[in-house]
Amino acid sequence: MIKVVIIGAGNVATHLYHCFREATDLDVVQVFNRNKDHLDFVKEPEKRVTDLSEIAEADLYLIAIKDEAIQDLAGKLKLKKGIVVHTSGSQDMQTLAGFDNYGVFYPLQTFSITKAVNFKEIPICLEANSEENLEFLKKTAALVSDKIFEVNSEQRRALHVSAVFVNNFSNHLFALAEDYCKQNQLPFEILRPLIKETVSKIETLDPYSAQTGPALRNDHKTIAAHLEMLDEDRKKIYTILTESIQNFHGKKL
Amino acid sequence: MIKVVIIGAGNVATHLYHCFREATDLDVVQVFNRNKDHLDFVKEPEKRVTDLSEIAEADLYLIAIKDEAIQDLAGKLKLKKGIVVHTSGSQDMQTLAGFDNYGVFYPLQTFSITKAVNFKEIPICLEANSEENLEFLKKTAALVSDKIFEVNSEQRRALHVSAVFVNNFSNHLFALAEDYCKQNQLPFEILRPLIKETVSKIETLDPYSAQTGPALRNDHKTIAAHLEMLDEDRKKIYTILTESIQNFHGKKL
Repeated sequence: MIKVVIIGAGNVATHLYHCFREATDLDVVQVFNRNKDHLDFVKEPEKRVTDLSEIAEADLYLIAIKDEAIQDLAGKLKLKKGIVVHTSGSQDMQTLAGFDNYGVFYPLQTFSITKAVNFKEIPICLEANSEENLEFLKKTAALVSDKIFEVNSEQRRALHVSAVFVNNFSNHLFALAEDYCKQNQLPFEILRPLIKETVSKIETLDPYSAQTGPALRNDHKTIAAHLEMLDEDRKKIYTILTESIQNFHGKKL
Repeated sequence: MIKVVIIGAGNVATHLYHCFREATDLDVVQVFNRNKDHLDFVKEPEKRVTDLSEIAEADLYLIAIKDEAIQDLAGKLKLKKGIVVHTSGSQDMQTLAGFDNYGVFYPLQTFSITKAVNFKEIPICLEANSEENLEFLKKTAALVSDKIFEVNSEQRRALHVSAVFVNNFSNHLFALAEDYCKQNQLPFEILRPLIKETVSKIETLDPYSAQTGPALRNDHKTIAAHLEMLDEDRKKIYTILTESIQNFHGKKL
């Protein structure tokens, strides 16, 4: 049985708690957060901890807190044994170099408190300060996910940026489209099948080959007509992305 | 039985042919294209037509050709009966005003020759020059799709622009991310679950509420670190979309 202490009470900490709690061979012995009110999601009251000095011995300490708070917390965490990892996409592993055994356990997914996710499908990106620790993290991650990747700090940062593009930015495009539909008395429902197909398409085609639209066709007339309809903010986005599609596919605007 | 003539041999024409051919109460009597070589997808050789003068009488003429060719073709099409519609998202219905009975039959989806789609799920946006013709189009569209919408020319143009945002532009963001992964020796597979979840999330949350990421959190440090990693093209896109997210959510960069 691998004993785990989770540090944090945000989206990632909450999802990790639920998923680790249900996994076989994993035992969440404590969840730490300074503010007890945020620990209500921990079903066993005796496992809620608000003082770092009360933290129990464990095999794995998962720091799932805001990026900017990791270094400070790591400095205050006094441990006799176990591996310490953080779950951040953008923080270097060396942030934890004050410990003997450390690494990164980065689940690449967008988490919302209100929506359950299937952890088995979530890629876990691992990094560790020794072969032995990496093996331990691999073994542990395999208890909750089928998709384990070994990823160094630089690659992890590249993934984090990529995640912003595919998740945050696409979602914002959906939000802009929804808002534009509202302005035109159109239900967003009408766009959902297209959004679904956009993603379904790249299961069989790579995104480069799946590209369609006026930018790719170099259809000046449609591009001009679209630009004329849009407000300044959407116009800028339309122009930049159209240019980028054309550069990427080797066409001139 | 509703008799249909399809004009065109591209992605939309091909998908409409297959779907209309399989529907009950619909009979594709002819498919027209100037170049016979492009009509191979029509299973019945006798239905392939390359001369406009040979076009048969039908109840519905579906013009599924390039936007810029519609007006010219419409001018040359001499009909005794039937309704003429085009399938374009951006062309005004009045392009077909030379006919007695006309309208628009716009399937809002991204079509690739190589990928089958479930037409039942595809929203069909209809417009017609009379109530009677609209009723006829609704009846016809209902034979192939469960999602029928009445949409005027202005709304259809708004939908077409929205489709560029949610489909073309998101797909390009996926392509940029895939390319960036390659540059960093990372498999694109690692991002697929995140892309899936991005879309799955907005089935239960509206895109505005589903927004996450450094732009929304106003996380200057991460934004600056990301910008430093990117090339000029991606940097521009990152900046514009970050600003847009912050404007949209009422925050200052």
